[in-house]
Amino acid sequence: MQIEIVTIGDELLLGFTIDTNGAYLARELAKHGITVARRTSVGDGAEDIAHAVGESLERTGAVITTGGLGPTSDDLTKPSIAHLFGRAMYEDADVVASLHRRWKALGRTGEIPRSNLQQALIPVGAEILVNAHGTAPGIWLADERGRWVAMLPGVPREMRGLFADELLPRLRGRMDGPATVVRSSTIRTTGIAESALSDRIRALSALDLEGLGLAYLPGWEGVDLRLTARGLPPDTADARLARVAAQLQVTAGEYTYGTGDADLAAGVLAALRAAGQRIAVAESCTGGLLGARLTAVPGSSDVMLGGIIAYHNDVKMSALGVRAETLAAHGAVSEATALEMARGARRALGASVGVSITGIAGPDGGTPEKPVGTVCIACDMDGASKSFRAMMIGDRGEVRQRSAQSALSLVRRMLLGTA
Amino acid sequence: MQIEIVTIGDELLLGFTIDTNGAYLARELAKHGITVARRTSVGDGAEDIAHAVGESLERTGAVITTGGLGPTSDDLTKPSIAHLFGRAMYEDADVVASLHRRWKALGRTGEIPRSNLQQALIPVGAEILVNAHGTAPGIWLADERGRWVAMLPGVPREMRGLFADELLPRLRGRMDGPATVVRSSTIRTTGIAESALSDRIRALSALDLEGLGLAYLPGWEGVDLRLTARGLPPDTADARLARVAAQLQVTAGEYTYGTGDADLAAGVLAALRAAGQRIAVAESCTGGLLGARLTAVPGSSDVMLGGIIAYHNDVKMSALGVRAETLAAHGAVSEATALEMARGARRALGASVGVSITGIAGPDGGTPEKPVGTVCIACDMDGASKSFRAMMIGDRGEVRQRSAQSALSLVRRMLLGTA
Repeated sequence: MQIEIVTIGDELLLGFTIDTNGAYLARELAKHGITVARRTSVGDGAEDIAHAVGESLERTGAVITTGGLGPTSDDLTKPSIAHLFGRAMYEDADVVASLHRRWKALGRTGEIPRSNLQQALIPVGAEILVNAHGTAPGIWLADERGRWVAMLPGVPREMRGLFADELLPRLRGRMDGPATVVRSSTIRTTGIAESALSDRIRALSALDLEGLGLAYLPGWEGVDLRLTARGLPPDTADARLARVAAQLQVTAGEYTYGTGDADLAAGVLAALRAAGQRIAVAESCTGGLLGARLTAVPGSSDVMLGGIIAYHNDVKMSALGVRAETLAAHGAVSEATALEMARGARRALGASVGVSITGIAGPDGGTPEKPVGTVCIACDMDGASKSFRAMMIGDRGEVRQRSAQSALSLVRRMLLGTA
Repeated sequence: MQIEIVTIGDELLLGFTIDTNGAYLARELAKHGITVARRTSVGDGAEDIAHAVGESLERTGAVITTGGLGPTSDDLTKPSIAHLFGRAMYEDADVVASLHRRWKALGRTGEIPRSNLQQALIPVGAEILVNAHGTAPGIWLADERGRWVAMLPGVPREMRGLFADELLPRLRGRMDGPATVVRSSTIRTTGIAESALSDRIRALSALDLEGLGLAYLPGWEGVDLRLTARGLPPDTADARLARVAAQLQVTAGEYTYGTGDADLAAGVLAALRAAGQRIAVAESCTGGLLGARLTAVPGSSDVMLGGIIAYHNDVKMSALGVRAETLAAHGAVSEATALEMARGARRALGASVGVSITGIAGPDGGTPEKPVGTVCIACDMDGASKSFRAMMIGDRGEVRQRSAQSALSLVRRMLLGTA
């Protein structure tokens, strides 16, 4: 099944809005074996909408639109497409009733504004896609030749709900025969370079990528491996993805920390919890980012005690007990200072694990010996300590993000016994 | 001048990539008085590219494409469009030379791969748009009727560089007569509700929005006011935007913290610097996020000393000196605790300003008296203290972001004397 997506709104043509709706629909449709042949964005003008949707209908006979269903005078999706299909509009009593119910449920008094009721105007012969997440209903409109347009609202939350609840079941009912799908699976790694990872994977003689594509996606969190199955039936795709993903996880070994959108901080917290450990952080150049990563995870409070943001050297000494001699002999950005910071955080907060970051995030502050991007990270745990110095690439924000990720990775590998 | 944008790549139709290139071009073109009539995304197939570009050319005679210029066999933008224009391709000696230079500059040895040289294939009669940021040159191809296609690479950094350096000057040369533009100006506010802000602005009798649109954009940072000028000559647009933006800034008063993409943390740091103050943070539910906001600003180290992440109540007592009686009587999420945290951070770090956050970010931990989203914020400065309790809406991440922003806003208003 081939379809086209038409996203509607002047904001898209002015670049004020990024078209995340189109990307979402494309991803979901591919997952279910529906091919998106083209995506188009047009403005709010009635003619522009009718032309774009009409052309898409000519090509594929199947179109999903988003946007232009609201109560304002700019919202012309329904009348333009009704006109294209040669249909009149009527005010639907059920939709009017639900608009009144919602008006009351929101605690509003007085008459419902006339403009709100515009949302109850429906093309004759259309089916209503009930919007459980907002006021504007979606519309399913088909002609006698079986060509159809599904109109979804532009608010992402509403669009996603309507797609899943109302549209996807209809599309599934129309698919004839066993579909082939595009599905993907992501394995997340950190602490290993793309080249080293690819060497490991190339050496894997048992790896059978038949029907699957493998992409290396490097970023500040590490290197993600994305496997994509195209042109396979759903069950075959899922089975091959699962088999090869498992192989890749074994191959990446201790550098793999999860699949999909797994978060390293959540993994570290789970490992700490399992080991009965409690953690404290000591942060200089990241200034709280590592603490923020750990506490972003719901339920982290049983394992994460807190930490010291020691941005100024005086604080490294007073709050963490870093010795003046260490700072004088090695500098604030040194493994020696990082180790004393990690121990200091552990001691000051009564934690069993201390982890620290000190570095030069830039853009200023670099020297020939310690250029911008130089970061020292240490972890102190059960009497054992590890530290390392690394060069983080990227701008200030990226250096900080990479540093926090590397610190989490060190804690994880120490817990695993592979640091 | 009307143009269309065609972005090319299978990843766009699979939803793996969000089309930020199209949004960027749309915004930049509107700023310079060029109307984007439609945006289209197609896959890597030669026929699909030729059809989409051909249809766009029929409508406007002016098309910008992105993507499909690289060295792999998927990169078919140039041959498809050359074919559409009935042009052969030749290997351009200058581009070959520049590819060899780049190959050497990157320290690579041996023969340059044949696939890389594919980037030197140019349609006959095309102009080369020199890519200072990567290997694939852009292409400008026009026919005898004056219709043209500009092909830009898909890598965002390269696309942006080529657009600004090479394409925009050409487009300006082709614009006849005084253009009208779409330009916008954003005023950032925080700490005032959308409805209160709109009441203030509606009461402003001197406000003349002629030719300008005003949008309220609420988010976790506060409410942004976006003024948009459409259909005005550049000088008129800029003058009106500047005049009305100044009026709105005065009207929003102490709640305005900047324009454009101004960052409240940067503003707070500048105000602290001007007042000769140094700050320390004490964070519970935000877990380091406020510290991370402040230290994300380059050069913050002269004003930001650091802080205490007191996620666990023991740390609130041991590191910040919060009294057990305060915790027992008022709870960890209370203005009393927040005040002791702010004072404790100030004292522990030897700062002149202490700011604190304690709250329930959720999803669990709420009670009838203190539901999820309840946050207490305090600031202690020069002997003066302020605290407040607020309900932050949104999920865990949003509650935390809103809390950090509110804490910054409190510091700012205390420095201004308007808290």
